Amino acid sequence: MDQQLQIAVKIVVDNFTMTLTRTSKLFDSLTDEELQGEVSPGRNTGVYILGHLVAAHDHLVSLLGFGEMKYTHFHEAFFKNPDKSGKEFPSIAQLRSDWNTVNETLTTGMATLQPEEWLHKHTAVSEEDFAKEPNRNRLNVLMTRTIHLASHYGQLLFLKKG
Amino acid sequence: MDQQLQIAVKIVVDNFTMTLTRTSKLFDSLTDEELQGEVSPGRNTGVYILGHLVAAHDHLVSLLGFGEMKYTHFHEAFFKNPDKSGKEFPSIAQLRSDWNTVNETLTTGMATLQPEEWLHKHTAVSEEDFAKEPNRNRLNVLMTRTIHLASHYGQLLFLKKG
Repeated sequence: MDQQLQIAVKIVVDNFTMTLTRTSKLFDSLTDEELQGEVSPGRNTGVYILGHLVAAHDHLVSLLGFGEMKYTHFHEAFFKNPDKSGKEFPSIAQLRSDWNTVNETLTTGMATLQPEEWLHKHTAVSEEDFAKEPNRNRLNVLMTRTIHLASHYGQLLFLKKG
Repeated sequence: MDQQLQIAVKIVVDNFTMTLTRTSKLFDSLTDEELQGEVSPGRNTGVYILGHLVAAHDHLVSLLGFGEMKYTHFHEAFFKNPDKSGKEFPSIAQLRSDWNTVNETLTTGMATLQPEEWLHKHTAVSEEDFAKEPNRNRLNVLMTRTIHLASHYGQLLFLKKG
């Protein structure tokens, strides 16, 4: 057991978890009406960002090797197209439930990994490319997704009224 | 040399640097007029967030052990008080220059650290507490500041017009 690696990996994992917990608490504190608002005039609605984050974390489940994507039907509405594209959204209740489900899959999978396994390649890189670029591993994917989540968290704060 | 630790540390450092580069490019692309706008109605101005990030990165320089804080006079206007508190701000030109200066000090210091040194304690924790909580190290501080920077980056995007 490499204790130094264990400490470094735990820092990234714990900070992802902290950012996720904070974002989930924010979603829980927002009413459906608040979620339907735009984070800034003419920008994304909270509903779009919620669906976008479900799709992103569904992709993360797949990249980390915890299973197939389950929300590929979200990618059209929440990834390939911008907000207000006319694509139909699931209900807010459904999105809230999907957010919890995808994150449970994610955190359950994360809990099974040993520190060394975080340095294994993620599923979207070939063995050949990984041999040349050992940073294309699970830990890097989690770190980039933490940054992605944090940037949307900062925006979602604006939905809170009063 | 612990190669696994080296890879893990590089991931955190590179992702901080990427987030910093992205944010600096965004600041450079914003006009003074855009920076004076609010990121969302009734929320912080770009100028306040710029000063706030200078103060945060000045504190980071100190936490990582690269020197004393140089912008303690910013803490009153950009940390202890909210935006529009009536506290006087430096000019935007000065803030832009200070942002580059503090980040040069930061990245120059970061470049001198060996992977193992990232796991040493940060300057605001005692030896006793660090012995009990080895995660209170430089790497953790950098990770939390990356999340902080990313959350403001997401907000600053709204200042861009057209």
